[in-house]
Amino acid sequence: MSALQQSHAVSRFPVPSLEQMPEDIRGRILAVQEKSGFVPNVFLALAHRPDEFRAFFAYHDALMEKDSGLTKAEREMIVVATSGANNCHYCVVAHGAILRIRAKSAHVADQVAINHRKADITPRQCAMLDFAMKVALDARNVADADFEALRGHGFTDEDIWDIAAVAAFFALSNRMANFTSMRPNDEFYLMGRLPKEKSK
Amino acid sequence: MSALQQSHAVSRFPVPSLEQMPEDIRGRILAVQEKSGFVPNVFLALAHRPDEFRAFFAYHDALMEKDSGLTKAEREMIVVATSGANNCHYCVVAHGAILRIRAKSAHVADQVAINHRKADITPRQCAMLDFAMKVALDARNVADADFEALRGHGFTDEDIWDIAAVAAFFALSNRMANFTSMRPNDEFYLMGRLPKEKSK
Amino acid sequence: MSALQQSHAVSRFPVPSLEQMPEDIRGRILAVQEKSGFVPNVFLALAHRPDEFRAFFAYHDALMEKDSGLTKAEREMIVVATSGANNCHYCVVAHGAILRIRAKSAHVADQVAINHRKADITPRQCAMLDFAMKVALDARNVADADFEALRGHGFTDEDIWDIAAVAAFFALSNRMANFTSMRPNDEFYLMGRLPKEKSK
Amino acid sequence: MSALQQSHAVSRFPVPSLEQMPEDIRGRILAVQEKSGFVPNVFLALAHRPDEFRAFFAYHDALMEKDSGLTKAEREMIVVATSGANNCHYCVVAHGAILRIRAKSAHVADQVAINHRKADITPRQCAMLDFAMKVALDARNVADADFEALRGHGFTDEDIWDIAAVAAFFALSNRMANFTSMRPNDEFYLMGRLPKEKSK
Amino acid sequence: MSALQQSHAVSRFPVPSLEQMPEDIRGRILAVQEKSGFVPNVFLALAHRPDEFRAFFAYHDALMEKDSGLTKAEREMIVVATSGANNCHYCVVAHGAILRIRAKSAHVADQVAINHRKADITPRQCAMLDFAMKVALDARNVADADFEALRGHGFTDEDIWDIAAVAAFFALSNRMANFTSMRPNDEFYLMGRLPKEKSK
Amino acid sequence: MSALQQSHAVSRFPVPSLEQMPEDIRGRILAVQEKSGFVPNVFLALAHRPDEFRAFFAYHDALMEKDSGLTKAEREMIVVATSGANNCHYCVVAHGAILRIRAKSAHVADQVAINHRKADITPRQCAMLDFAMKVALDARNVADADFEALRGHGFTDEDIWDIAAVAAFFALSNRMANFTSMRPNDEFYLMGRLPKEKSK
Repeated sequence: MSALQQSHAVSRFPVPSLEQMPEDIRGRILAVQEKSGFVPNVFLALAHRPDEFRAFFAYHDALMEKDSGLTKAEREMIVVATSGANNCHYCVVAHGAILRIRAKSAHVADQVAINHRKADITPRQCAMLDFAMKVALDARNVADADFEALRGHGFTDEDIWDIAAVAAFFALSNRMANFTSMRPNDEFYLMGRLPKEKSK
Repeated sequence: MSALQQSHAVSRFPVPSLEQMPEDIRGRILAVQEKSGFVPNVFLALAHRPDEFRAFFAYHDALMEKDSGLTKAEREMIVVATSGANNCHYCVVAHGAILRIRAKSAHVADQVAINHRKADITPRQCAMLDFAMKVALDARNVADADFEALRGHGFTDEDIWDIAAVAAFFALSNRMANFTSMRPNDEFYLMGRLPKEKSK
Repeated sequence: MSALQQSHAVSRFPVPSLEQMPEDIRGRILAVQEKSGFVPNVFLALAHRPDEFRAFFAYHDALMEKDSGLTKAEREMIVVATSGANNCHYCVVAHGAILRIRAKSAHVADQVAINHRKADITPRQCAMLDFAMKVALDARNVADADFEALRGHGFTDEDIWDIAAVAAFFALSNRMANFTSMRPNDEFYLMGRLPKEKSK
Repeated sequence: MSALQQSHAVSRFPVPSLEQMPEDIRGRILAVQEKSGFVPNVFLALAHRPDEFRAFFAYHDALMEKDSGLTKAEREMIVVATSGANNCHYCVVAHGAILRIRAKSAHVADQVAINHRKADITPRQCAMLDFAMKVALDARNVADADFEALRGHGFTDEDIWDIAAVAAFFALSNRMANFTSMRPNDEFYLMGRLPKEKSK
Repeated sequence: MSALQQSHAVSRFPVPSLEQMPEDIRGRILAVQEKSGFVPNVFLALAHRPDEFRAFFAYHDALMEKDSGLTKAEREMIVVATSGANNCHYCVVAHGAILRIRAKSAHVADQVAINHRKADITPRQCAMLDFAMKVALDARNVADADFEALRGHGFTDEDIWDIAAVAAFFALSNRMANFTSMRPNDEFYLMGRLPKEKSK
Repeated sequence: MSALQQSHAVSRFPVPSLEQMPEDIRGRILAVQEKSGFVPNVFLALAHRPDEFRAFFAYHDALMEKDSGLTKAEREMIVVATSGANNCHYCVVAHGAILRIRAKSAHVADQVAINHRKADITPRQCAMLDFAMKVALDARNVADADFEALRGHGFTDEDIWDIAAVAAFFALSNRMANFTSMRPNDEFYLMGRLPKEKSK
């Protein structure tokens, strides 16, 4: 397979057909397809390993779907900023799309992916991303002063856990996507960029 | 001025009105507006310093508008990849738009900005970007072996100069944009992402 | 609470009592205690978030307990080497103990934690750790050549996934442990260091 | 051509003879020769590309020759410090000579090239160089606090632009010199080091 | 010699027999053996170069054996922390053993080697190690503010010299050990880990 | 004492007078003064600690004064290149002077201090400096392949020890000089730069 062809594959590894998947995984994938209109490639790529698939999405949902002091858009900001720092093509494109939808903003994802300090976000969100980047890139030096700074912006300790846990989970996710050369679906690139979508 | 307001400004520095600008600079800006339908903010931000404006755009045009063994799309790839590495919000967004238009590809700019090694580009273009990144980030170690590798992909020595010179010029440009907090125009974000635009 | 006192806590965050834990989590913890003679602090620290606890250990078991082309000792080598690179005190001490037991070697954990290239391991294991370190520290640049090098040492593609997935999972784990200042149990420091233990 | 011979060449690329140069470029070069007694190799190396030559020196003069709140010696300090950080042999040697002349100091160039924090400069100049180094090496993180620190040393916003613009321009220049293996003229090494020269 | 065999050698370089050593070096080695019960491999590896051996241990003793405002345990903490940062297998294992003995602590060496900011040490000791790490990794930026911070913890200027000099000496030692692939003696791994040893 | 005054001091620490020094140290210093015409400040700064002074110069002489497969000029190249990489103002200026004298070259020191890959040195010397830089900056990764590369240039294993040991010793020296803000004597800056000196 040529380099060009390979680059269009979902993953370096085999992707099972729906028929080959365990029942629960097929079910989850069909549900996503019904809701979104397509199956994000991360579901297909990780279905190669059913037990890891189950744990991965259980972890994802525990962080990204639950109630939190952080909005869902803010959690996606953390994903996009740290995935940019990790040069993870899949996560920047796919979660950039989700961030645009959730933040009802056509521009914030591109801003945060490149340099969150130049983004149209609040000072509180900037502090949130500063900390997320420290967890992503320099967790060894996380210290009391980091907690104090976040509390000064109104974050509770539970919020701080949420920030760190999202950054930590995507440290895993970014490495899996880069390692498997996971390819983002074409659909993601344009999602949330057009005015009409915002009113959804 | 609040942080949020400031982030919507074109630049940290004053921007002259058209009336305040020297004749030649006003002329260039009006010509760009007529062609593009808007004035990219880099023209406004740099108009604060007319002599630097003139040299900047003369240099830009000498590299980006001339005939070259590199296509215009390839030169924009170099801009986007190195601007991503330098976390330059303005250049990634503005030149990402130009790259989409010139490459007639809705996706390549986002790919190259995050990780050119995962992008849908040819091996020759990947080698071109590997070298551009070395010039951008580690020019001290450019050596004969780099030239040999590029010649192996069919690049002439003049092509190699072009690759390096574009990367070097945007080393300057990225620093000016980050230093002035130059803000990309809203128009850039969507340019080249819609199917109909491709047929332009 | 003084810095010294704090440093003896299991975690920066509250740790639930056994009575406060959901049934399944309490059950897992009691089972670990019965088998090991003590409860590793990671179970207590993560019990603060039951859903994340469940996903974390499901992921852990899917990688570390399953059959694999890598021995359990080799998987622990990956944990210890990458946790050393991430300066994760908890994981180096706790998994260093497990590695000593599983490799029946009193010395290999300290060697691998500091510099795997000076460790008493086989060239195949050294290649495995070179790749794990690349996934941990530079996943953006994982490329075909890395796969080829590992295949040259007899690793299958499924083995390579296992190497990468263990490194990626502990990228998450190291960040959570550093963020929560998770403290390793005193028991770990001496485990597997005495001759009689080896014959267990 | 042997490595040693090559290392004595002006540039990796062909250098045109005076006769081959466009009139304006030949004129500039002859004027420099008359004033300095020799032609700095940067003029010869860049003459390979006349349009880039013109833009390069127009930019250079716009920054280095104009009136500014920074003395010419201070602007050369910025060049030497950032060129040292970029390991640019040509610019450290050539602009080190100019700095010695302009600062009337035989020692400051060597000091600033190696470690400006150990140099015999004023605290204001040290702050200037701290900022120039941030623009050269970490422009993504330039922030309001950097501007405040400089204003505290009496720099105006226009002075701050000058500092940043000189650092940014030599980011370009250092990359071109390293890429072309541009060789400094022998004359530069000793210029400004002898007591009599200071009284010129 | 295979990679595995080589990894069990004391050094990449020849090690002289006792008979081959100059009288003073043999005497020192026999004295160490009598006191410790074995000869640490650093004595054997460096005996390959008698003059360097003499200077090395004279320097070592001048720093580590003299009276100082730092306890001997504190000086060993500096060795272990900076040797961990330099990934020096020999020094972390050998001096980790000495630190355990001198600090009468079975755990502090493993903690300090991996991440001194998570170690069971006093804030004063943490400040000492912060500075030692700066000397080890970033000496170019040592500044007045570092001295002020240490004085705030009660360190005299002579104590500060001691901290820096120990870090600087082991910058040398770590490089020699890594370069020669110096192998720590098996005896070191367990030293100071058992309760009875503490009462020695 | 102002920042400017301080910057002219020999060291941050007290410097003893000749009368205050132990006999042997005073003797060495007087001998140096007689030979060189001045006392290099490193002798004065380290005389603050007589035992460290003695060990330091014994180590220095064991490496720099002995017979070796490396010329004295080559050993000074190693000092200047690694001291440049460590941003050590004292060592670059002082040993740059010695290198100019020993290599009978007015230019090589400035070249090697900034970027040895652009210096007028032989391929063998370039390989020597590549290895010295690896010992200085990345000793953890020194491996068999490095030895093979050097043997390919005709270096014996004893020569390789010499290269590494000089780089390692100046890792110590650079840290002491940066920590003490050791100031190079004015005499060094011009030494070896004038044609007549070469014929000495």
